[in-house]
Amino acid sequence: MGAEMQKNQLKALWAKGQPALNGWCSIGNPFTAEIMAAQGYDSVTIDIQHGALDYSSALPMFQAMRASGATLMARVPWRDPGYIMKALDAGAMGIICPMVNTRAEAEEFVSYMRYPPYGQRSFGPTRAAIALPGYGVAANDEVLALAMIETADGVANLEEIAATPGLDGIYVGPADLTLGTQQGRLPPGFDRQEPEMIELIRRIADVCKANDIKACLHCGTPDYAAKAIDWGYDLTTVGGDSRLLAGAAAASVSAWKDLTGRDAASKDQGGMY
Amino acid sequence: MGAEMQKNQLKALWAKGQPALNGWCSIGNPFTAEIMAAQGYDSVTIDIQHGALDYSSALPMFQAMRASGATLMARVPWRDPGYIMKALDAGAMGIICPMVNTRAEAEEFVSYMRYPPYGQRSFGPTRAAIALPGYGVAANDEVLALAMIETADGVANLEEIAATPGLDGIYVGPADLTLGTQQGRLPPGFDRQEPEMIELIRRIADVCKANDIKACLHCGTPDYAAKAIDWGYDLTTVGGDSRLLAGAAAASVSAWKDLTGRDAASKDQGGMY
Amino acid sequence: MGAEMQKNQLKALWAKGQPALNGWCSIGNPFTAEIMAAQGYDSVTIDIQHGALDYSSALPMFQAMRASGATLMARVPWRDPGYIMKALDAGAMGIICPMVNTRAEAEEFVSYMRYPPYGQRSFGPTRAAIALPGYGVAANDEVLALAMIETADGVANLEEIAATPGLDGIYVGPADLTLGTQQGRLPPGFDRQEPEMIELIRRIADVCKANDIKACLHCGTPDYAAKAIDWGYDLTTVGGDSRLLAGAAAASVSAWKDLTGRDAASKDQGGMY
Amino acid sequence: MGAEMQKNQLKALWAKGQPALNGWCSIGNPFTAEIMAAQGYDSVTIDIQHGALDYSSALPMFQAMRASGATLMARVPWRDPGYIMKALDAGAMGIICPMVNTRAEAEEFVSYMRYPPYGQRSFGPTRAAIALPGYGVAANDEVLALAMIETADGVANLEEIAATPGLDGIYVGPADLTLGTQQGRLPPGFDRQEPEMIELIRRIADVCKANDIKACLHCGTPDYAAKAIDWGYDLTTVGGDSRLLAGAAAASVSAWKDLTGRDAASKDQGGMY
Amino acid sequence: MGAEMQKNQLKALWAKGQPALNGWCSIGNPFTAEIMAAQGYDSVTIDIQHGALDYSSALPMFQAMRASGATLMARVPWRDPGYIMKALDAGAMGIICPMVNTRAEAEEFVSYMRYPPYGQRSFGPTRAAIALPGYGVAANDEVLALAMIETADGVANLEEIAATPGLDGIYVGPADLTLGTQQGRLPPGFDRQEPEMIELIRRIADVCKANDIKACLHCGTPDYAAKAIDWGYDLTTVGGDSRLLAGAAAASVSAWKDLTGRDAASKDQGGMY
Amino acid sequence: MGAEMQKNQLKALWAKGQPALNGWCSIGNPFTAEIMAAQGYDSVTIDIQHGALDYSSALPMFQAMRASGATLMARVPWRDPGYIMKALDAGAMGIICPMVNTRAEAEEFVSYMRYPPYGQRSFGPTRAAIALPGYGVAANDEVLALAMIETADGVANLEEIAATPGLDGIYVGPADLTLGTQQGRLPPGFDRQEPEMIELIRRIADVCKANDIKACLHCGTPDYAAKAIDWGYDLTTVGGDSRLLAGAAAASVSAWKDLTGRDAASKDQGGMY
Repeated sequence: MGAEMQKNQLKALWAKGQPALNGWCSIGNPFTAEIMAAQGYDSVTIDIQHGALDYSSALPMFQAMRASGATLMARVPWRDPGYIMKALDAGAMGIICPMVNTRAEAEEFVSYMRYPPYGQRSFGPTRAAIALPGYGVAANDEVLALAMIETADGVANLEEIAATPGLDGIYVGPADLTLGTQQGRLPPGFDRQEPEMIELIRRIADVCKANDIKACLHCGTPDYAAKAIDWGYDLTTVGGDSRLLAGAAAASVSAWKDLTGRDAASKDQGGMY
Repeated sequence: MGAEMQKNQLKALWAKGQPALNGWCSIGNPFTAEIMAAQGYDSVTIDIQHGALDYSSALPMFQAMRASGATLMARVPWRDPGYIMKALDAGAMGIICPMVNTRAEAEEFVSYMRYPPYGQRSFGPTRAAIALPGYGVAANDEVLALAMIETADGVANLEEIAATPGLDGIYVGPADLTLGTQQGRLPPGFDRQEPEMIELIRRIADVCKANDIKACLHCGTPDYAAKAIDWGYDLTTVGGDSRLLAGAAAASVSAWKDLTGRDAASKDQGGMY
Repeated sequence: MGAEMQKNQLKALWAKGQPALNGWCSIGNPFTAEIMAAQGYDSVTIDIQHGALDYSSALPMFQAMRASGATLMARVPWRDPGYIMKALDAGAMGIICPMVNTRAEAEEFVSYMRYPPYGQRSFGPTRAAIALPGYGVAANDEVLALAMIETADGVANLEEIAATPGLDGIYVGPADLTLGTQQGRLPPGFDRQEPEMIELIRRIADVCKANDIKACLHCGTPDYAAKAIDWGYDLTTVGGDSRLLAGAAAASVSAWKDLTGRDAASKDQGGMY
Repeated sequence: MGAEMQKNQLKALWAKGQPALNGWCSIGNPFTAEIMAAQGYDSVTIDIQHGALDYSSALPMFQAMRASGATLMARVPWRDPGYIMKALDAGAMGIICPMVNTRAEAEEFVSYMRYPPYGQRSFGPTRAAIALPGYGVAANDEVLALAMIETADGVANLEEIAATPGLDGIYVGPADLTLGTQQGRLPPGFDRQEPEMIELIRRIADVCKANDIKACLHCGTPDYAAKAIDWGYDLTTVGGDSRLLAGAAAASVSAWKDLTGRDAASKDQGGMY
Repeated sequence: MGAEMQKNQLKALWAKGQPALNGWCSIGNPFTAEIMAAQGYDSVTIDIQHGALDYSSALPMFQAMRASGATLMARVPWRDPGYIMKALDAGAMGIICPMVNTRAEAEEFVSYMRYPPYGQRSFGPTRAAIALPGYGVAANDEVLALAMIETADGVANLEEIAATPGLDGIYVGPADLTLGTQQGRLPPGFDRQEPEMIELIRRIADVCKANDIKACLHCGTPDYAAKAIDWGYDLTTVGGDSRLLAGAAAASVSAWKDLTGRDAASKDQGGMY
Repeated sequence: MGAEMQKNQLKALWAKGQPALNGWCSIGNPFTAEIMAAQGYDSVTIDIQHGALDYSSALPMFQAMRASGATLMARVPWRDPGYIMKALDAGAMGIICPMVNTRAEAEEFVSYMRYPPYGQRSFGPTRAAIALPGYGVAANDEVLALAMIETADGVANLEEIAATPGLDGIYVGPADLTLGTQQGRLPPGFDRQEPEMIELIRRIADVCKANDIKACLHCGTPDYAAKAIDWGYDLTTVGGDSRLLAGAAAASVSAWKDLTGRDAASKDQGGMY
């Protein structure tokens, strides 16, 4: 009497002991989303926090990526029930929540992800029920709750947060983690090489393992991602649409200028995030 | 010197002792909104909480429905001043606020709806002043504040909430009310038939009456709505645009397949909310 | 070395001797499109001619319907290469072209649908190549060219038009066909009951059969569609999203008013097309 | 059985012998449209030709202006059936068609505006039927066909064009009329002061009168518009939203700089059209 | 190695002892924004709080105004990290935050504006890094944090708020300030003439000066703004796009009606904010 | 008395004898456009023909790229005055027109690009006048008219077309040129290696030189572009946003899978254009 809800494919992959590759969308456009989802990522996350987009673009992006079979997730701007529940209703199979600094905040986040009696999510999966036949309270078991640890407080409370019932994993953003823990001594950025940052990044993975939750890392390159997987990370993001596009276009312009001898000085890409 | 602000037509209807029929928009499109508003509903509510839409679509929807004469309202994603005040500035004559669980939360909600000294609404009705000539502090008396009771806590605090000064009514969402109070024993859904749910739904109407505020119920069918009106409900919503469309299309496909003998197995509509 | 392009499922259905049911989108919204495509239609057509939408909404609608597996088509506003080629590049597997009145116009239409040397379509299937892996010159064999006969001239040239090489079928719009052939004696509308109109509608199907192309009819009800299939029609459209929504909402309002005794006079739906 | 279609209010005004004031929308936004329509114009025209907008913004603009009671029209980009019929289906009660240079072009334009047997408009007033109850073939009598005369050819054929059956009036755009007839001797712009231009502008009004059609003029100031009405013009446009906004903002900036003594040199507004 | 981040031009102006003129955008459209930014304002603020727009329109508005050289800012709907950080990531060089009533709220606001260790802003300036080469932690020194004082509480805590480390200024909205402090005795509106309001408005400027932060005032006319600058205000806003447009259009309509003798009674603009 | 209109920077570059690099936008989004325009291209063209976009996205893209200083152009869907004039009014400094097959078509195209008496462009540069101060009839000298030669007919008429007065150059699209001239013997695609295609591509450059107009080529790689410049091409496009993004993402996914040993079989990118 009604279809059974589709299983979360990231969970299935992890159950087989395999690491996952996550794509990242910062451009608010369903065509770029469809292009990204066609490249073979296991999951694709729409970044509603720092991406140049909001719910109004995320919705058609979810739709455009549906046919790809990738597991679709969203990073929300803040630990806010409005943002989280709307992303879930739009069909997100996982939420990455920024700035989870305490056990209480982690519990609050998890509560927004589950229908009662396991949480306080409000019922009304308007688009999810169309896109994911069988959607209903069964969603409690399928949607992934991933908390970001990115401040000194978050690190101090790491073990407690990781032990939060219902939390599925921790997602590490190295730029904020560096800013949040190093008192301004180090610049933001991905793919940290500093021993203290590597140690911290590895410790988070270890704590996740100890608590039987997943460790996820935002990376800038496949090389660093592969290293992170060796460290025990279960999911890595590599780059993201806006950086991939800017990098490829800049490389093309630069190659053309070198080949044609036109004004060698290429534009500085500096702080592209 | 300046027009007097248009009166809230739902209030006028209730003053005559008549029940109201509310239409519901979950599709983020001004043309579907204009179609809905043309059907004779007394009021139409844009569901910014669970609808597949946000402020950016709600704004042209309000505009497209203005000529219909229906009273226009919005359900906001959460008890958040940003959401509530923006919906009011866009021209909403009423706000349905989800997850009001305590008297303090009800007071907070009401405070966002009224200009000082009666509340803390910020002044700047940019579109409301165009669409509703005479709009100003007089809006305090015209906009309806409807709180949703949908959790065990909310039910426990029902009397206190209903007595909140400035609250105009309670809006009941049976799906959440069931999940929130029945510990997972019952599935979500509208038009509850279980005696304990009917009793609860009727009790809310009674408490509203006792406090001289309005009782409103989200229904799935005209039949149930008519029953609710017999129970004392002042406003009922029946269905909503996405369900009406999906239901009518599914019935049409099904009839065609029956008549032509093409593959009888119609698509399962299962959990459409 | 590259996937083979996906086959047109309408063609496959017809090859099995089965009639097809086409859904119709006049609302410019990807969520209504996704809802429509979920109901079990064999194909869904976006009406860029008379629908309240243009290319900018058609694009995300194609994306939102991709996962459904329905064959997606578009009706273009006019026999214009810009409209036709953009709809094809966006992923349409078929084009319904209005107002084809002569053999020369039919040939022109067909030429816009095929890459050289079979036509003059310009190459650049930007989104089609993402959504339909393997897309390329093979598209010549998969995209359906359906011409509308809807004027006295079109009817006079029916046999010649039907014999146009590369034309896949004729799509009949009864409202225009009536206006275009009856000199104002009959009002527009679907599901014609007049003997002269039925005769004409049947003759078109016969001419299609004689030329081994498909006959398609726009209908208002499943009953009429079933009759048309008996007459030899290969594809029928029944209703459309805006009519289905308006009809379902009007019926719901009317039922509620009957049950509650509120002002019986429902709004007149009159000329909803 | 079904409402009678709303009458064209411009026609009613003209029937009373009164001149009309037309507002002009070049900004593609429903809120600016709603603001414009609230100012008391008799009609408001959306400029799809030179405005910074296309059909996708014109549609919600028509919706946002519906409640104002102003007669809504559109200027289309070219004498193209796709543009014209889509604007009519969206609810335009009149079409201003640019670059009508011959009687044949005028007849073609008029034919796109009327349903058979009086023309070749295709039937399917999807939004018009919602917004204008009773819409149907009766629209033939209500929608205004206004041709623009703006080239040397158009002026040479003025009498023939003005006599086109079904044409309701001529709309004069002084910028193009000047460029099109003066061989580059005069710059473009509104409110022409040159005797030869005034003579030409007056002659057009006279020819319209002689053919019992309406004369309409695009003006830059109320003063010039008043003069045009003395010349026999039946409708004048004054300014337009983008010019009004730019002019008012520039004046405000300039006044502030004068009052505060900050860098007197205001930005040059030069060629704002 | 990477460009240095562009300096905030408002700060540069203030460093030279000059007052600034701020433009105001309440219309959610990049073309109106581009028009506004072309008029010579020193800065332009997008009003995400009361404007008829949200993030989805603010983003292309920031883009459309980038070439103008004006300093771009945003007023956010509420003291919420999601709103504030998204506006900064979109390229805002300053944030006006409504309803700052206590020192704690001011500190919270400032913390959202700065990267650690000076605050808790999350790192990911996706568009800012494209639009403002060199963007990074240096943004801490360039983005302006302007708090609104608009309630009795805010006024009571004025000195404490003004002394908040990292706060760059106070922005006064006279409508809310009047409602929030006068117990309903005075209507909302700009350009207050009442002695008690003038005294309060001047006192805020004095407190700002004493704390070496900037005083900013929302005005309705250049005259009042000039007066405010004499009182020590460092930045004044005059009017805003929707008011400028409505005012200019109303004046044009009124002039036309006066000149032509058509129905003198112009539409009442009453409460346009 | 008004600024002088900005000069076309491509013309300036060519006047110095330098080749130009053109960027290409097929994604309908102002953020991707802003990213592209930041990479150092001399010009950027929005592809309204085959790109997944139309005028409604092209407009904010022009705005978002304005600050970059790149010369902005558009390829239009067809040789249609509506498309061409709207793109110019939106601020395009050049138009690439597809499928120019005869001298008459080239003349028609050129006539749409110039104001009388040199052509038949209609006057009303609504956004252009804001974005390009001084815009007016001077635009006749600044906007580039580039015709595409891409069929057997076009090649047959090459010399005649190249000699069209007012034509600024020829733009070669190798995919269509191959399909249009090789009778299906060769597949579409860029960077042709076949001797007959190279000869044809070189001959077009030679004919351009002989007629003192510019030769432009759409390329897939910087290497081929450099070769084309050696052949005498004045402008080359390399890749385009959607291909650059897809290529970079696919390479990243592929590298990650190689490094981690996850299922080597990457998704087939096949026919991405």
